[in-house]
Amino acid sequence: MVFHRISAFADKVWNSIATAPSELDGDYNSVSTPTVHGTHTPVAEKCFALSLVAFEIMCLIFFALKFEMPSPKHADADTVSTLNYYPMYMDVHVMIYIGFGFLMTFLRKYSMSAVSLNFVVAVLSLQWGIICVTMAHQIGSDHFTTKLFDIPTMINGDFAAGAVLISFGAVLGKTTPTQLVWMTFFEIIIYALNEYLVLEQMKVSDAGGSMVIHTFGAFFGLAVTVMLGVPCENEQVHNTSRYHSDVFAMIGTLFLWMYWPSFNAALVGTDGFQQERAIMNTVLSIAASCASAFAASKMMSHTKKFDMVHVQNATLAGGVAMGTSCNLAISPAAAITVGLVVGIASTIGFCYVTPRLERLIRMSDTCGILNLHGMPGVVGGLAGAIVTFSASDDFYGDSLTSVFAAREYRSANEQGWYQLLAIVSSAGIGAISGLLIGYVLKSPLFRQQKLKYEDDEWFYVPEECHA
Amino acid sequence: MVFHRISAFADKVWNSIATAPSELDGDYNSVSTPTVHGTHTPVAEKCFALSLVAFEIMCLIFFALKFEMPSPKHADADTVSTLNYYPMYMDVHVMIYIGFGFLMTFLRKYSMSAVSLNFVVAVLSLQWGIICVTMAHQIGSDHFTTKLFDIPTMINGDFAAGAVLISFGAVLGKTTPTQLVWMTFFEIIIYALNEYLVLEQMKVSDAGGSMVIHTFGAFFGLAVTVMLGVPCENEQVHNTSRYHSDVFAMIGTLFLWMYWPSFNAALVGTDGFQQERAIMNTVLSIAASCASAFAASKMMSHTKKFDMVHVQNATLAGGVAMGTSCNLAISPAAAITVGLVVGIASTIGFCYVTPRLERLIRMSDTCGILNLHGMPGVVGGLAGAIVTFSASDDFYGDSLTSVFAAREYRSANEQGWYQLLAIVSSAGIGAISGLLIGYVLKSPLFRQQKLKYEDDEWFYVPEECHA
Amino acid sequence: MVFHRISAFADKVWNSIATAPSELDGDYNSVSTPTVHGTHTPVAEKCFALSLVAFEIMCLIFFALKFEMPSPKHADADTVSTLNYYPMYMDVHVMIYIGFGFLMTFLRKYSMSAVSLNFVVAVLSLQWGIICVTMAHQIGSDHFTTKLFDIPTMINGDFAAGAVLISFGAVLGKTTPTQLVWMTFFEIIIYALNEYLVLEQMKVSDAGGSMVIHTFGAFFGLAVTVMLGVPCENEQVHNTSRYHSDVFAMIGTLFLWMYWPSFNAALVGTDGFQQERAIMNTVLSIAASCASAFAASKMMSHTKKFDMVHVQNATLAGGVAMGTSCNLAISPAAAITVGLVVGIASTIGFCYVTPRLERLIRMSDTCGILNLHGMPGVVGGLAGAIVTFSASDDFYGDSLTSVFAAREYRSANEQGWYQLLAIVSSAGIGAISGLLIGYVLKSPLFRQQKLKYEDDEWFYVPEECHA
Repeated sequence: MVFHRISAFADKVWNSIATAPSELDGDYNSVSTPTVHGTHTPVAEKCFALSLVAFEIMCLIFFALKFEMPSPKHADADTVSTLNYYPMYMDVHVMIYIGFGFLMTFLRKYSMSAVSLNFVVAVLSLQWGIICVTMAHQIGSDHFTTKLFDIPTMINGDFAAGAVLISFGAVLGKTTPTQLVWMTFFEIIIYALNEYLVLEQMKVSDAGGSMVIHTFGAFFGLAVTVMLGVPCENEQVHNTSRYHSDVFAMIGTLFLWMYWPSFNAALVGTDGFQQERAIMNTVLSIAASCASAFAASKMMSHTKKFDMVHVQNATLAGGVAMGTSCNLAISPAAAITVGLVVGIASTIGFCYVTPRLERLIRMSDTCGILNLHGMPGVVGGLAGAIVTFSASDDFYGDSLTSVFAAREYRSANEQGWYQLLAIVSSAGIGAISGLLIGYVLKSPLFRQQKLKYEDDEWFYVPEECHA
Repeated sequence: MVFHRISAFADKVWNSIATAPSELDGDYNSVSTPTVHGTHTPVAEKCFALSLVAFEIMCLIFFALKFEMPSPKHADADTVSTLNYYPMYMDVHVMIYIGFGFLMTFLRKYSMSAVSLNFVVAVLSLQWGIICVTMAHQIGSDHFTTKLFDIPTMINGDFAAGAVLISFGAVLGKTTPTQLVWMTFFEIIIYALNEYLVLEQMKVSDAGGSMVIHTFGAFFGLAVTVMLGVPCENEQVHNTSRYHSDVFAMIGTLFLWMYWPSFNAALVGTDGFQQERAIMNTVLSIAASCASAFAASKMMSHTKKFDMVHVQNATLAGGVAMGTSCNLAISPAAAITVGLVVGIASTIGFCYVTPRLERLIRMSDTCGILNLHGMPGVVGGLAGAIVTFSASDDFYGDSLTSVFAAREYRSANEQGWYQLLAIVSSAGIGAISGLLIGYVLKSPLFRQQKLKYEDDEWFYVPEECHA
Repeated sequence: MVFHRISAFADKVWNSIATAPSELDGDYNSVSTPTVHGTHTPVAEKCFALSLVAFEIMCLIFFALKFEMPSPKHADADTVSTLNYYPMYMDVHVMIYIGFGFLMTFLRKYSMSAVSLNFVVAVLSLQWGIICVTMAHQIGSDHFTTKLFDIPTMINGDFAAGAVLISFGAVLGKTTPTQLVWMTFFEIIIYALNEYLVLEQMKVSDAGGSMVIHTFGAFFGLAVTVMLGVPCENEQVHNTSRYHSDVFAMIGTLFLWMYWPSFNAALVGTDGFQQERAIMNTVLSIAASCASAFAASKMMSHTKKFDMVHVQNATLAGGVAMGTSCNLAISPAAAITVGLVVGIASTIGFCYVTPRLERLIRMSDTCGILNLHGMPGVVGGLAGAIVTFSASDDFYGDSLTSVFAAREYRSANEQGWYQLLAIVSSAGIGAISGLLIGYVLKSPLFRQQKLKYEDDEWFYVPEECHA
């Protein structure tokens, strides 16, 4: 009797931390759920809250061991104020939380999940990204030293979040929050390693991350979604927008569009007008891609009308495509040309490529990240390489080694080949690791989402009232 | 006959300025309204427009007498440019108008009122706050001198607006606009006096206002709402969200979340890396509270699903809780710990504390400000006091007296006790004055709102069309 | 036979670029459309995509010929970094894309078009504005030289976009996208000429563009809409808001309201505290206009309730009215007074003037730009002139010629008359050119919009689902 009570109490406690809805929520699917724990709900899914708390405690330990706040005693050392990075950091912040978050609200019954899961995934990425990128940059050091915390480090955290959120776009509506937590955990580690490889080992210039953020994030996400498979026809019923969800998505589009120059220029040096070039080239390119996406949308959409999918996404391709070359020796006209081309190419992707890939290789790409990040990211990497091959050193003057650290001992041609190699590295590492992580996420450890593109398995959704 | 005409004309004029809807709007409740003026509509309610104009003229007079714009002739004096405060001022502005404004749009039929009344209350607070805070800081001077207007003064106006809008959250949907105008008028005066007492007399450090803004505003608002009472069951029918109002509220949440570092750091000095610490500790703490709020929401909400109320509110608790200690000697790990704790505590508050208080002491707290501002504000004050007691002076170096002005003549322990006293002062003065003002607002001078949580007594609401 | 095939293929290609929906979209109006091309669809309308591409290629050529990016080789010359303009540039950017874009989403079935067309029109204006303003400022030079691209130049592009978007507000819902492209093309040219005339030839001070942006844009747009005529009764059925479109519009209103100080101060010099005055006077004035608009709305709206049209628009009038005088010798009290007056006047305009003008001179002004930009713009110009006449030179000290370049050789009175002349120039040139362009847009070259205030002729609109 006593044992029975203890057992009942233990059950209750376990219930309160192991919270897979199919067992606990009486309103949902409860008829067919057996009373024995664990038979139908995979282990990992029971433990969303535990996963999250474990993740946070791990971050906490790393922060306790590795990071220190600046104080006057550091004034003796080479510590300088990084406050001038703050305004651009805030712009990047807005892109990550409002930009990506609202861009993904376009689904008719998944707006709550989109903006909320984007929020928590970004928050986890921010912390874990700061840790992983900092650790990766200490590879090869004799011992891992304490890092003085500063604003550029936080920008690196947001950049890591960007890569994860790009991948999130591919699997939007098709994963459980627990799967997202673990995807974030693994993706950030690989992101940091690739970023270290490309920026520190290959000494490649990639100011706004065409390669290390967009190409990597897109190929990773596409590989994951290939592993997860294509939802069947009647699961796709909610994979469309409605009027106001399309308007909400425009909030995301516009904030991404406006602050993209800050994203590309945030960590660029100010010497030799580099940062100004990064800003101004990005403005011109992303403006051009907006115009060409509208023109292409009108021509190509099957109704011969503007399609909000293109307005929301293809308009941004010019920002992605300037990610590598924005601070290099690129002229205003070249920036506009690149923007015009990728705006059209991205629209073509949405109209023709994505549907075909879904049929042919069973790749379901909810937000079309291939067209917004994958293809423009590769184009951006190529544009950067072409500029590296072709630009005269005179253009950069004294700022040459600030732009390309390795040009002290490399020729322009060598640097160009390294730039090309970085595209291959980012796409390849992204794709291979994405297949692996996708395999893990598909394993019986995790429950596969049944209600596709719908909030209400994971979110309490208020009843609609038309009164 | 002539007298009759004059009287009719006078009536007409009076009607046009005394505009309580129950008498003038034929579509609303007009059947039972007697034709004699003033019998049923309280005096103050007739005069919303008059109240507002009187308020503005009062502000105008103070500005005419007390404030001057900087010009080259002041360059001789100690006047320095305050333009470097501008970017953070704009971030705080966004928090006040978009952040608070949209956070409160979550009610299904009160979104218009929420964002619009937030707008006008903030605007009144901004002006009256600038005046009252400036006047309060001249207490004890021989004569009130002309103040040279600058950007930090305007930030103080926005901080005052923050306190009033926190209180507004408690009474959201249950007051008339006229009551709000008068609540703003009185609350700002008391806010300014408490702020003067805490910051100038007690010389307490409270960079982001855990105590003077959040604790004060929350206890004031809760006291007012206790006086106004709990709406009866059938008045509560609209005290819920709907799908898109929950998404609108996320705009508010995310802008508050993103710009909170600017709020806490806006008026912090730059010496000794204080401002950077304020920014970075706030980022870490508010990120941690987002993660822990999601975990707690999943575990505690009655459906075992994420609850948007928690996502919208508890995620922000880490920013409030860093309001006092953000620029002090606090490590990254400590900031994260504080964030994790208040994120969970705030969610517990929404799930268990608020419903119980509504039953037990008849306190109706529409936005749950106790959980978002009251409790985390007190925790923030305590955290600040603990750091003050425990941190070594070596940490601050030369910036010690910039952080704590009174440490020139006080020991760390004395300063710690003053920090604790400031919590008591803010909460106590807030609660007592809130009870008084609540009593005034409940008086027959003001009409008590009948249609709870609904726009359409005060706002022209367009018909819905489902075509 | 071969010829027939070639002809069919040519038809197909032509169809894919000449995309007037009435011919191509089977779902729309296709029954009565003849199969012969060109009979019913005007030439220009067939070529939306072509117009846009032509526009972009023209911009591309100008950028290739005229603009150069800064690089270290320019460091020898007088090139200075313009990065300090960047934060305000971003604020202006937000006003143009989010502010104007969402302000115009208020129509119940035109939100998608409003925010999307605002987007593309702004993007075209940005590029064409940079070109035209730069070219205009080289009038009188011996040869058009290459311009070094910088951030103030980009702010000028956004200012030009502001003027066009003001005009767009008057014709919202009543033009085709093709008409908008061509309106943008012509309006920017005239804008640049008037701006050159006022600022460079007359040497008038107009920091925030009360005259060159708001007055010009408003009179241009009103003249165009007079030419286009008033939609008949049953076309006006969708010229109203719905609940959530009103809330979306508040996003626009609030971002405009918050960042208006940046708009007025973006290009103001920092010497003599000019820029700080511009910021602070604008904050005070726009705060006052918000308060007075609420008071006036309550008194004047026909239901005696707040009207969201006033809340969304009249609250901003104080920012427009500070456009000329914000950096001049104006006291805080004067700024508030101007704001109070225009807030009331703008509400009067919405209640009484706009409906009368629609009846009397058949001027259909969808967004009420007369009340938000036209009237307050003129008031702003007058306020600037009055301050110029009356302020003592002592106020400005050494910064006098930085504020008024022509005061080196002009008296204060002369300068005042020039300021008045600039109002006449901006309004007059705007109105006359607007009539001309309106005449062109009404010509048979362009199709006149049939479905007024509705997205679905030009946008693919998702089906609503109430499930």
